Amino acid sequence: MDNNHWILTAQCPSRLGTIDAVTGLLYNNQHYITELHSFDDSHSNQFFIRAQFRANASFDEVAFRQEFSVKAEQFDMQWQLRATADKPKIVIMVSKFDHCLNDLLYKHRIGQLSIEIPAIISNHPDLESLAQWHGIPYYHLPVSAETKPAQEAKVMQIIKDVDAELVVLARYMQVLSPQLCQHLEGWAINIHHSLLPGFKGAKPYHQAYEKGVKTVGATAHYINDDLDEGPIIAQGIDSVDHAYYPEDLVAKGRDIERVTLSRAVRYHVEQRVFLNGQRTVVFAD
Amino acid sequence: MDNNHWILTAQCPSRLGTIDAVTGLLYNNQHYITELHSFDDSHSNQFFIRAQFRANASFDEVAFRQEFSVKAEQFDMQWQLRATADKPKIVIMVSKFDHCLNDLLYKHRIGQLSIEIPAIISNHPDLESLAQWHGIPYYHLPVSAETKPAQEAKVMQIIKDVDAELVVLARYMQVLSPQLCQHLEGWAINIHHSLLPGFKGAKPYHQAYEKGVKTVGATAHYINDDLDEGPIIAQGIDSVDHAYYPEDLVAKGRDIERVTLSRAVRYHVEQRVFLNGQRTVVFAD
Amino acid sequence: MDNNHWILTAQCPSRLGTIDAVTGLLYNNQHYITELHSFDDSHSNQFFIRAQFRANASFDEVAFRQEFSVKAEQFDMQWQLRATADKPKIVIMVSKFDHCLNDLLYKHRIGQLSIEIPAIISNHPDLESLAQWHGIPYYHLPVSAETKPAQEAKVMQIIKDVDAELVVLARYMQVLSPQLCQHLEGWAINIHHSLLPGFKGAKPYHQAYEKGVKTVGATAHYINDDLDEGPIIAQGIDSVDHAYYPEDLVAKGRDIERVTLSRAVRYHVEQRVFLNGQRTVVFAD
Amino acid sequence: MDNNHWILTAQCPSRLGTIDAVTGLLYNNQHYITELHSFDDSHSNQFFIRAQFRANASFDEVAFRQEFSVKAEQFDMQWQLRATADKPKIVIMVSKFDHCLNDLLYKHRIGQLSIEIPAIISNHPDLESLAQWHGIPYYHLPVSAETKPAQEAKVMQIIKDVDAELVVLARYMQVLSPQLCQHLEGWAINIHHSLLPGFKGAKPYHQAYEKGVKTVGATAHYINDDLDEGPIIAQGIDSVDHAYYPEDLVAKGRDIERVTLSRAVRYHVEQRVFLNGQRTVVFAD
Repeated sequence: MDNNHWILTAQCPSRLGTIDAVTGLLYNNQHYITELHSFDDSHSNQFFIRAQFRANASFDEVAFRQEFSVKAEQFDMQWQLRATADKPKIVIMVSKFDHCLNDLLYKHRIGQLSIEIPAIISNHPDLESLAQWHGIPYYHLPVSAETKPAQEAKVMQIIKDVDAELVVLARYMQVLSPQLCQHLEGWAINIHHSLLPGFKGAKPYHQAYEKGVKTVGATAHYINDDLDEGPIIAQGIDSVDHAYYPEDLVAKGRDIERVTLSRAVRYHVEQRVFLNGQRTVVFAD
Repeated sequence: MDNNHWILTAQCPSRLGTIDAVTGLLYNNQHYITELHSFDDSHSNQFFIRAQFRANASFDEVAFRQEFSVKAEQFDMQWQLRATADKPKIVIMVSKFDHCLNDLLYKHRIGQLSIEIPAIISNHPDLESLAQWHGIPYYHLPVSAETKPAQEAKVMQIIKDVDAELVVLARYMQVLSPQLCQHLEGWAINIHHSLLPGFKGAKPYHQAYEKGVKTVGATAHYINDDLDEGPIIAQGIDSVDHAYYPEDLVAKGRDIERVTLSRAVRYHVEQRVFLNGQRTVVFAD
Repeated sequence: MDNNHWILTAQCPSRLGTIDAVTGLLYNNQHYITELHSFDDSHSNQFFIRAQFRANASFDEVAFRQEFSVKAEQFDMQWQLRATADKPKIVIMVSKFDHCLNDLLYKHRIGQLSIEIPAIISNHPDLESLAQWHGIPYYHLPVSAETKPAQEAKVMQIIKDVDAELVVLARYMQVLSPQLCQHLEGWAINIHHSLLPGFKGAKPYHQAYEKGVKTVGATAHYINDDLDEGPIIAQGIDSVDHAYYPEDLVAKGRDIERVTLSRAVRYHVEQRVFLNGQRTVVFAD
Repeated sequence: MDNNHWILTAQCPSRLGTIDAVTGLLYNNQHYITELHSFDDSHSNQFFIRAQFRANASFDEVAFRQEFSVKAEQFDMQWQLRATADKPKIVIMVSKFDHCLNDLLYKHRIGQLSIEIPAIISNHPDLESLAQWHGIPYYHLPVSAETKPAQEAKVMQIIKDVDAELVVLARYMQVLSPQLCQHLEGWAINIHHSLLPGFKGAKPYHQAYEKGVKTVGATAHYINDDLDEGPIIAQGIDSVDHAYYPEDLVAKGRDIERVTLSRAVRYHVEQRVFLNGQRTVVFAD
């Protein structure tokens, strides 16, 4: 993707003219739309749009923002503009299981995920050498019931210091405090190893085994203040049978989890995900 | 499948020699095993086996049963022997939605399901002409809160009269009484239009819509006395996105439900399903 | 879907302003866009757009067509406008295997496919009673090497007489003549029982068996003058293993074929499919 | 898996008593079968069996081999016995794309693949540091048309020196000479990035793009002397649409390829794969 490609996203109450507000303005400024998605939700009466465009040679970001903000105000739009070359900064939190981390680092390394990873935070020291090999700072912040407030304060400080705009919980096996959850609401993605809303809470593969399901899965979702209940971004699935003991589900689940989490992270950083109440709109590719 | 093919199934507590009890006896009688599945569950300590065999020319069913029952007693086995040419009798219960019924009838008509359908029971008259075209007796038994005991008594009478060995609830939209559930436990299959244990109860597609899941599915399970909680036989799945309103999920779900239910019925009639506590063992093909 | 909903589709060479040509005009006329898809193909330099809209109360179709045709000419657009209430007329051709026919008829019957079926044409008499039950005229037109030209002439006459705009080859097991293929190019859909381009020609499941594949599938495609080579609309897949003999693949394939064909037909009648050289653009829902 | 677990595999012409030859002998020696799979191929008239068993405390491998070889001779069986604790030695060959290598190394590192990797061979130096981090010797053997015979000789020497029993071509982008193919026939697994037999040869994703398929996939197969034509072990698939340019197919394909290759390698090392002419029998878990 060469320079001068931009992504404009917006959402607002449904109304005549919402699409034209975006497409018309881009056309009038001679910007070439290369990819366009929109969705008008007749249940929530919310409108969502994502336009990827190649700006004309004389593109002036400040002027464009000014011009669009007038339109946006008319339609009560929340909106974002960013260059596709812009790499969002992501902090990854992890404990000991590193199948998701390994996949994110791999996709980051080969450029399949267009992100920066300024920090990996873990409550265990185990994965430091993996982080090191990828040249990424590793913060080992052990946590116990007593130290949790202090530890979370450090977590928040790091996130702030590196100016992260997304936090990814890549199998971080600690329950976050309500305060941290609230702080991260809408800009932190968690991977839960079940097809939510089935098997919330601890040991979902063991729960799935007990129930005797023939399908297992994983769910990537934004966190909110209700455990395993935030808006779902992506789900992955696979078939199993009676011969899968819990440890076999765990093993099979690794590939499902990492693919699902990577996909959700990519959708987020490519500005493809919108919050729509407790649900999401995802303009997948 | 020509004549003289048989299916022998057995289950018992795990123990050394369980497999040999079956394979050795078949070999000693010169019966040719064409398909063999077994599973030794190290969690429940239960053993399951299914052997399909071509009997030798001088096969004597009575003598074989006698001989095997001695072995079976040694191992505390529950077992069944039946000819593959034997067509189980199935009663189908249905309300107004006929996508599952239509599929079962179709597969029955072309021989893909090797069954007899001596009766279709419905609380509505709507599907009589479909049953008629397939040459199958249709029992219209309307039901209300007051008439439920009487209606269910008639249902049970029909099932008994036609000597059915399986009841299929192909979107029968009535909650069965605990008595009927108990009566049918282990030999009635229901299709629930969600990936259980997610979205039990009424209107699962609407629940799924509200939750914003990215995956929908259907579950075929044996009924027991706990609504939507019986042992799972098969599950089917498909991906959806934000643009699916509840009515779209309903439409997409039709293909998932009927394929899932047909598969579960086929597995049952081919003696591929075993109860293992609240779970099943399914020797799928 | 209530009245006054319309679908506008267009395709043209890629150029600045193509989207605005559609969205701007709809906006200026106060028509409310409920669903919008577009694709700008940077390889073929072709642009595709589909807008579904609720027309304002004073919608004048003739005037709209006139106004849009001016725009369309500027952009060298091919375009179509039709009411969503409009049911396309479809002729189904079939031989003896009726799993696809049965599915199309079922979805037609319950309204999941918004079509009219004025004729079913078959080279065998077997499926007449099925057609009859659905109240659809059945034309039995046997065919042999000598009678093929005459038979195909009759086929074309029927298609013309009923004013069909789509022909569906639902397992019609006759090779069409080059003339008929040419005549139907772009408005006839065939289902081939393999994942094209693998296993063209006769007996694809047997070919798949010989090759030992672990995945089978079906392909719905427009026919053109090259057998099994027309633009692909939809493909369906499922996993198999060594224990599937050719007849098992045939049985498993039935569900894949009918779901795939029904989906392709629905996409076509909902104006979601565009030809893009030898490829298609499909705005799936 | 604790000690004293073994896997016995055998294949032979179909005949009465083949199953009993294995299960009877295990029973008579008081070995406990924990997992049993068999397949009697009525087309090729070949029989396949895999028994995993917990040997009794006084297990004598040499005596068991002797006893079984008598049985095996009677049935003309090829057979293998190995302890589950035994880790097969695998040589991985790779060029520059490392998504498959990275996945194999990851699964090796966490013990999901029970193997040893004594050597990674590449015609490029790029992946040396990755190998180093995993503590695995890396052999950089550049190759050109002139040096190919010498390079392949070195490859064979390394394979021999480390006593490898499986070679995995994890996107090794060089065509092997017929001699090397022949040498490796049946004990080298290649990953081809298409659903074979579709899109053999170079640039399969580009071929798939040109054809306009709606499904892409990858195939793991044993190599033989015919390029991309060896017996298939596993295939993986995913759906795509018109918006996937070749580079998008390449990106999506990475996850399909590595999951498919890892699965095939695991099946092979767990002795789950048998050659059956140009096809395979795979006792998947």
